[in-house]
Amino acid sequence: MPRITHVEVTDVRFPTSLSMDGSDAMNKDGDYSAAYVALRTDDPAVSGFGFTFTIGRGNDVCVLAAQRRAEPLIGREVAAVVGDLGGTYRDLASDSQLRWLGPDKGVEHLAMAAVMNAVWDLAARVADKPLWRLLVEMPAADLVDACDFTYLSDAITREEAIAMLESTRAGRDERLALLEQHGYPCYTTSAGWLGYSDDKLRRLCAEAVAEGYDHIKLKVGADLEDDVRRCTIAREVIGWDRHLMIDANQVWDVPQAIEWVDRLAEFKPLWIEEPTSPDDILGHATIRRAVAPIGVATGEHGMNRVLFKQMFQAEALDFCQLDSARLASINEIVPVYLMARKFGVPVCPHAGGVGLCELVQHLSIFDFLAVSATLENRVTEFVDHLHEHFVDPCIVEDGAYRLPTTAGYSAEMHAASVAAYAYPDGAYWSSSAQVAG
Amino acid sequence: MPRITHVEVTDVRFPTSLSMDGSDAMNKDGDYSAAYVALRTDDPAVSGFGFTFTIGRGNDVCVLAAQRRAEPLIGREVAAVVGDLGGTYRDLASDSQLRWLGPDKGVEHLAMAAVMNAVWDLAARVADKPLWRLLVEMPAADLVDACDFTYLSDAITREEAIAMLESTRAGRDERLALLEQHGYPCYTTSAGWLGYSDDKLRRLCAEAVAEGYDHIKLKVGADLEDDVRRCTIAREVIGWDRHLMIDANQVWDVPQAIEWVDRLAEFKPLWIEEPTSPDDILGHATIRRAVAPIGVATGEHGMNRVLFKQMFQAEALDFCQLDSARLASINEIVPVYLMARKFGVPVCPHAGGVGLCELVQHLSIFDFLAVSATLENRVTEFVDHLHEHFVDPCIVEDGAYRLPTTAGYSAEMHAASVAAYAYPDGAYWSSSAQVAG
Repeated sequence: MPRITHVEVTDVRFPTSLSMDGSDAMNKDGDYSAAYVALRTDDPAVSGFGFTFTIGRGNDVCVLAAQRRAEPLIGREVAAVVGDLGGTYRDLASDSQLRWLGPDKGVEHLAMAAVMNAVWDLAARVADKPLWRLLVEMPAADLVDACDFTYLSDAITREEAIAMLESTRAGRDERLALLEQHGYPCYTTSAGWLGYSDDKLRRLCAEAVAEGYDHIKLKVGADLEDDVRRCTIAREVIGWDRHLMIDANQVWDVPQAIEWVDRLAEFKPLWIEEPTSPDDILGHATIRRAVAPIGVATGEHGMNRVLFKQMFQAEALDFCQLDSARLASINEIVPVYLMARKFGVPVCPHAGGVGLCELVQHLSIFDFLAVSATLENRVTEFVDHLHEHFVDPCIVEDGAYRLPTTAGYSAEMHAASVAAYAYPDGAYWSSSAQVAG
Repeated sequence: MPRITHVEVTDVRFPTSLSMDGSDAMNKDGDYSAAYVALRTDDPAVSGFGFTFTIGRGNDVCVLAAQRRAEPLIGREVAAVVGDLGGTYRDLASDSQLRWLGPDKGVEHLAMAAVMNAVWDLAARVADKPLWRLLVEMPAADLVDACDFTYLSDAITREEAIAMLESTRAGRDERLALLEQHGYPCYTTSAGWLGYSDDKLRRLCAEAVAEGYDHIKLKVGADLEDDVRRCTIAREVIGWDRHLMIDANQVWDVPQAIEWVDRLAEFKPLWIEEPTSPDDILGHATIRRAVAPIGVATGEHGMNRVLFKQMFQAEALDFCQLDSARLASINEIVPVYLMARKFGVPVCPHAGGVGLCELVQHLSIFDFLAVSATLENRVTEFVDHLHEHFVDPCIVEDGAYRLPTTAGYSAEMHAASVAAYAYPDGAYWSSSAQVAG
């Protein structure tokens, strides 16, 4: 019976700012990074991997927080940790001194996400299943009891949650067969980063169409005339039968968001993403009423389940873009999916960064099989960067994620990548040509 | 012309968990702590001090974040830093990589609070004024331009803010004379910590009455029968002409809060404080409608100005209890005061912990002189702990804060205290008798 013997947390940073990959109106020069957690046991064949995603500076702060947060796991039996995933979560989350630093937000919550992502990866490996299958095959009551419903009882109860999961058993095999054949539909953001030239934008949009994408997303919000020109180029290339989404990455106040989106309405975007502060529930509701039928999407900075509860209650969202490395892993993500279904909001998870695509494919598959049971208005983000660093990278074909088949949460990085991009001492960063981030 | 030469950030922890000081239904065993920032210059007579408050574990994470956040200040001229307090704030706050870890919440925001509190202390020292006087005497436009109004324009504009501050010039001298005579009214939480025995509660309530307090606060929420018994004792001692407040420290879901408060309504509390998640704007609004005329108070975990904006817009609060070490110092606190006035909500700042009383006295005085111009429904928290560690401790007499007269933000700790309680290497913590926190 293996025990967890130590926890390795590594500050891994990739120099994405050099190529303007990931550039948008708010995040001009991100170095895509991970506070990368490896739970090691006394059995060399048994480990769990997880991470939270950041964009460079401050990744060291998340590393320290994750080390501290994971310490109570050391010495525990693996069977006990993965045999009570709710208890493990509550035990780590309920540290009454660490709670003061949130609760449930910012660095400490990112650290919880990193550690619990590794715990769920470990659980799926022990069960010898890809995570999506572990979730789908868990008895509904067990999954619900692993969830954190604290502060949610005015929106959803344990009994409702169980009934919701059980109601989707009918047709699950057929839906699985559909996914095995066609994959889970995704869209690409790779074409539309703000730092790319018009020529590069035009070329990447054309490539995306050729690769089978029906949805393409552009970054907007830095300069209105630029946005008009870039949307014009995108529509010229993708036509009007495909969907165009726009993403402002939080640069606007509420009145400005309404005005700016109004100016871009002629391009008929499916959604405006992150029009304002990710904390502004009432602001999103105001914007949504003003810009309809353009949808409002947000969630990659959605800090916790209480925020999403209110987004649903206030009818502030058309698309929920929860983040797999910002919410505190499955224990908090599943309640958001369940509330989304109850309030009738499709979940289109945020991805990109480093490793987020590897994680969210499991979530979307779980959603279709066990929660929403529909693909209507659902499409999951895909960005074609940095997958080469993962042992079990996601596979996208014809605009859809193929089903992962390897046991775990697809979160393990190649040891060589971790070593090379460890900050500041890895081979890449310590070479004299690199400027410290 | 002095320059900032280095930044010292110290992990200072006091072993308050040993005496159950500060115990409540959520925070059972806090060790009151500070991530303590000293901005040093090449002039030994010129320094600035600030901190954020935590309750023990995780203080090291805040220390690391504050070190990183303050780094850009090193090498700058003091005159430039304090001569453009808005520019200094925006420069530190706008790090596009660190922003990902919030934005504006959790550890990174606490670190911003610590650093900017030290910058404002430095500014007041350079001006040779206590902070409250620096704020009151700044031209209204200068103070407003130091403020962060990002994401607030749907609630308040720069022009409204300036007009509001200018409108309070009339009568300011009379109000100052009133404060100089009577001080700023406060209430005590020292009597009502949950870990205290009934006898100790009875004795402390009687002492508080004897010391001139008209408001007394009890912690509730762990056990309903205990709460009934403790409220009964408190009312026996303080009578019905004084105010009793109750504080649940976030332990309830929304429906449970309504039910529990209903059971304590017979004790006619002035407010129920922190009935549920500090993030739950709509939940507070629901509770407020249900428990009226008992007021709803929250804010010590209010993460940023966007949260408070929505609390006001949703009519969720009767009392705003902003925190001087959680909001990003004056640059973010003043906008909350201005919105509170516009929406007609009194601000009764959170204090206690370590050093918070020293800070909030300046805020309340500023509010009365320059923003609200009234004391109606306003009372500032006071907890009589740990003041001996401060060079310029607050002075409370007859249930009121006396006006600070020394230059600065009253944030400086005695060097001997910092040395003794530095964690883990200070004399107190390294002595063999102490258990690591």
